[in-house]
Amino acid sequence: MSSKAARRARFEAVFDIIRDELVGHCTKEGLPTEAVGWYRKSLEYNVQGGKLNRGMAVVDTVEILKGRNLTEEEYVNAAILGWSVELLQAYFLVADDLMDGSITRRGQPCWYRSQNPTFPPSSSSKKYPAIGLIAVNDAPMLKSAIFQLLKTHFRRESYYMDIVELFHDMAYKTEMGQLTDMVTAPPEVVDLARFSLERYSVIVRFKTAYYSFHLPVALAMYMCHIPETYAVRLPDSVEDATKTLHPYDLTLSILIPLGEYFQIQDDFLDFSAPPAVLGKVGTDIVDNKCSWCINTAMKLCTPEQRSVLDRNYGRKGDIEADAEGGEHDMKAEGREDEAGGLCEARVKEVYEAVGLRKAYAEYEQRVYAELNELIDTIPEDGVIVDEKGQKVTEHGGLRRQVFRSFLEKIHGRGK
Amino acid sequence: MSSKAARRARFEAVFDIIRDELVGHCTKEGLPTEAVGWYRKSLEYNVQGGKLNRGMAVVDTVEILKGRNLTEEEYVNAAILGWSVELLQAYFLVADDLMDGSITRRGQPCWYRSQNPTFPPSSSSKKYPAIGLIAVNDAPMLKSAIFQLLKTHFRRESYYMDIVELFHDMAYKTEMGQLTDMVTAPPEVVDLARFSLERYSVIVRFKTAYYSFHLPVALAMYMCHIPETYAVRLPDSVEDATKTLHPYDLTLSILIPLGEYFQIQDDFLDFSAPPAVLGKVGTDIVDNKCSWCINTAMKLCTPEQRSVLDRNYGRKGDIEADAEGGEHDMKAEGREDEAGGLCEARVKEVYEAVGLRKAYAEYEQRVYAELNELIDTIPEDGVIVDEKGQKVTEHGGLRRQVFRSFLEKIHGRGK
Repeated sequence: MSSKAARRARFEAVFDIIRDELVGHCTKEGLPTEAVGWYRKSLEYNVQGGKLNRGMAVVDTVEILKGRNLTEEEYVNAAILGWSVELLQAYFLVADDLMDGSITRRGQPCWYRSQNPTFPPSSSSKKYPAIGLIAVNDAPMLKSAIFQLLKTHFRRESYYMDIVELFHDMAYKTEMGQLTDMVTAPPEVVDLARFSLERYSVIVRFKTAYYSFHLPVALAMYMCHIPETYAVRLPDSVEDATKTLHPYDLTLSILIPLGEYFQIQDDFLDFSAPPAVLGKVGTDIVDNKCSWCINTAMKLCTPEQRSVLDRNYGRKGDIEADAEGGEHDMKAEGREDEAGGLCEARVKEVYEAVGLRKAYAEYEQRVYAELNELIDTIPEDGVIVDEKGQKVTEHGGLRRQVFRSFLEKIHGRGK
Repeated sequence: MSSKAARRARFEAVFDIIRDELVGHCTKEGLPTEAVGWYRKSLEYNVQGGKLNRGMAVVDTVEILKGRNLTEEEYVNAAILGWSVELLQAYFLVADDLMDGSITRRGQPCWYRSQNPTFPPSSSSKKYPAIGLIAVNDAPMLKSAIFQLLKTHFRRESYYMDIVELFHDMAYKTEMGQLTDMVTAPPEVVDLARFSLERYSVIVRFKTAYYSFHLPVALAMYMCHIPETYAVRLPDSVEDATKTLHPYDLTLSILIPLGEYFQIQDDFLDFSAPPAVLGKVGTDIVDNKCSWCINTAMKLCTPEQRSVLDRNYGRKGDIEADAEGGEHDMKAEGREDEAGGLCEARVKEVYEAVGLRKAYAEYEQRVYAELNELIDTIPEDGVIVDEKGQKVTEHGGLRRQVFRSFLEKIHGRGK
């Protein structure tokens, strides 16, 4: 097994502990067997099977901050926080898929379209009742599970309240982002006048960056006892000057633009990457997504090009799917399986004509440099000291590598 | 203004503070105007206009426990906790109405059926886009608002963590109850074999009793600094004997059966109360509700009567609504507007034949006596003492009146 596969397998093994604990809690509370079985299936169906980037980022960050291998107990605790982020993600995906009317997710039918476990399918018919709107309740149960886990595993920790509040805040912000997305690109309505790069930035920050980037790192920082503020005595200062750090604010100031970079790249790849590389066929244009591409094109285009965009964006087109359609969703986190066509081609022509590829290359170069500069402001060679100037031993302070590893994973990826 | 109306008006005035605070927070976070306006409308539409029994129960209980009028600051804090319960209720109602496909709530269209505020209705047409599935995200935003409020107003209180955990626990349990209800009486399916009095009891406890009865009282107890356990020196004991109390466990042991009594009464009134008294036409039979009536009838009936129930329960019938249909939903918390008919009449005949009225009268008499007995176990004349036998002054202990006032409001109500 590769080292990467082994890391994933170790992380995945902790899911069984979490699932058994959550299911056991429901049983102990006296829920009937069918309800407990349903919840177990929801946990397995919706929380497993993703890329686990967010969850494993908690473990990776704890390892970087501690600067050593974790004890078994530390590993399990970090992984429980990681799975809590995956539970939050599962909550959003179940709800978003239902709202968007999506078809598949992670290579299987979306939860709301999957089989209702209390009705076994008859062998004579492929028709069976789906979960449907019961998903409206299943989604928040995945979120509630987080606080049950935190209570069980972290109640005695000094940072318990901090991580509970962090989950509240990140979930609320993501819900605000989802709302903003919904008023910007409502289902069944195409209206590019609602779009703008500023609006795009709000949606990305709230809907993706907080919970996908800031949340895993901040959880790891709390677990490593990094305080809200600390002082560093700089090594090359003549008079023992200290620099005061607000590590959580600093983290936010790096990870929000980094999350935005990730999403802009994602949007650009949806348009530009060959389906064989991307592992799916991009559908942002047909799906009326408030994407970086359309917003940037609208900013760069002529009035004539704008009217082409208005007429063709978010339309199903009138040509059948191309040959690569078969590869759709192979490795994807899931998108609706829809056929693009003539309209999509018209939009792509405008994207090319306004120089979207060049705009992306310039953006990427600029943001990569800016993020590196920000990361370099983190002092690493100094000594962390308390108010009396004494060396602090409870934590090693923030490390550049936390951010560098995210940035390098994103920079230059092709899918 | 009557004293009751004045109490309500004072409580309602605090809603404006809460709404402005929540809306202001979104604005400060940088959400666009349309999203903020949408959230403001969701708060006003979904949180206001109810009976406010749960919210005002927090204030009432704090007053009973303190045994005096509250200061303005104490009142506002108690009312914020009360409105937090109403926010939780609003979250459940928005989600439940969507899941159940309900039509009206509190005399207006259910939120998911109400007008999408980003599309002003054209004067020429009555057709407008509805909120629809965006309610899947609006519902949990109402829940998230609770933790935002608690953080703002109670973070410095010693009981902050207790009330946060209490809200987590009560919300999770209610979601478990909703799930149990959904697997017991799935939409579009009638299967009485899934029903039983035991199952009914689980649903009522989880879906209603915890958050409607235990939550408001436990919040008030935390706010009055009542500890998890305390000792009372009994007045008529010769040798200064003390009794150790677990007040939160005791509260739960009273309020869960009391909540069950409330729901059983609600179910019985749905069948038995004249629509003019009830303020609506009962629709539990037609709606396939897992009600106390059907479960009790199934327990008491003959096999022949059971087959009448199987054939007629949860069916729309084939006769038009009776004359009282017009009063439907007048004051109701909301029910789907459906016509009962022949099927409903057949079920009601079985209810009468098995003696449901007598069964209810017996149940009510028994539970009323049992609850009074439980309430009487709360020592009231003793002195609350610490481990050293010294009189405690931080709190006055639990009071019988907290429970007596609930019980008397329920006992003998006709609607």
